Amino acid sequence: MTQETQLQQLIDTQAIERLLFTYAFHLDMNQAAELAALFTEDCEVIYGPGGFGAQGRAAYAKTLEGVGSFFKATSHHVSNIVVDFTGPDEATVRSVLYAWHRYNREMPDSHVWGQYHDVIVRANGKWQFKRRELRVTGDKDFHVKKTLPIGRS
Amino acid sequence: MTQETQLQQLIDTQAIERLLFTYAFHLDMNQAAELAALFTEDCEVIYGPGGFGAQGRAAYAKTLEGVGSFFKATSHHVSNIVVDFTGPDEATVRSVLYAWHRYNREMPDSHVWGQYHDVIVRANGKWQFKRRELRVTGDKDFHVKKTLPIGRS
Amino acid sequence: MTQETQLQQLIDTQAIERLLFTYAFHLDMNQAAELAALFTEDCEVIYGPGGFGAQGRAAYAKTLEGVGSFFKATSHHVSNIVVDFTGPDEATVRSVLYAWHRYNREMPDSHVWGQYHDVIVRANGKWQFKRRELRVTGDKDFHVKKTLPIGRS
Repeated sequence: MTQETQLQQLIDTQAIERLLFTYAFHLDMNQAAELAALFTEDCEVIYGPGGFGAQGRAAYAKTLEGVGSFFKATSHHVSNIVVDFTGPDEATVRSVLYAWHRYNREMPDSHVWGQYHDVIVRANGKWQFKRRELRVTGDKDFHVKKTLPIGRS
Repeated sequence: MTQETQLQQLIDTQAIERLLFTYAFHLDMNQAAELAALFTEDCEVIYGPGGFGAQGRAAYAKTLEGVGSFFKATSHHVSNIVVDFTGPDEATVRSVLYAWHRYNREMPDSHVWGQYHDVIVRANGKWQFKRRELRVTGDKDFHVKKTLPIGRS
Repeated sequence: MTQETQLQQLIDTQAIERLLFTYAFHLDMNQAAELAALFTEDCEVIYGPGGFGAQGRAAYAKTLEGVGSFFKATSHHVSNIVVDFTGPDEATVRSVLYAWHRYNREMPDSHVWGQYHDVIVRANGKWQFKRRELRVTGDKDFHVKKTLPIGRS
């Protein structure tokens, strides 16, 4: 790999990490439009089994309606990010999530420990989520009861 | 941007991230002098509304007195770091905090989920906090009752 | 330092961070063989005082037996990573851990807040743990009762 390519991959990795952080930020700030804009038009979002998620950005934006009033506050902490480039404009990305949620209803705060498995692509110079899948390692009082497992041996 | 500048920004970003981690480390190790040294002489530290914080490094060092005996242990976990350079020697930085505290008094452990909003500058080749503001997304049993909100929509 | 060396250190830092994340991943996925392969033959693993840990990869692999059935799930969140190169093929690395554990037995979930202190070396082009030491800042319901302190002042 040339030094130029190595440098470009470092810059791209940083941009991809930033995308993950920007997602968390807009989610915690309850900024639905900004959140949806981070996804490709033909994105696939998988938050759980049985079709819990969305096909396409428009459908994803719809799922975000009501989320803002459901939560009083959330905090998404993303770490352990591993980026594998599958091409100059595509990467598979794995990361670890610790999320805390406070509800507007009378429900205890919930905690989620999980993994994100993403396909992230660059189009028009911008990195976006093409596929985002949440797998849940474990939770405490999470309102979502059916989640995808991480596949622990 | 030239390759030289790109490389320099990656190195500077790493140094800035390290500053955030060094702050957390000295805080958790209860090393007040090392902590204060991470700030500029004219720094502004804002931990809450109503003047909770400090103006200037000397004043900040004063606020750190007594902190060591108040906490039995703390653990500050910083992630989701986003760096925006506003010049070759200045950056605005946003990050996410999960902090756990154990007190010396008979109080339950507390948890804080929040955001840091920083202005970080380089002087004499060293990156330092010029401004550090903590906003609190939510907490459990935190002894600080008045905090700055993140501004969730 | 030449630009070539600076670039190489950024790439090496990324590889070292990835090693820390890969360790957490295999631990959470209960993949003992993959976990042991991240350590050097002559590694030293220190999980607590009084010899709790292992000397050498073979001994470490032995300690991993039974771990899989003891935990129902774990989630290791690693952040605040600080890398100091002590040579072209060696680095001392400090990081912060938040770990959540769910047991197979009737025990409450546990939480650990701690620090990893590592010596990481490159052999045959691969970065591996030569020494890994866990220090515990605090815990809640952790089954391990004797742990190494972080040395808070």
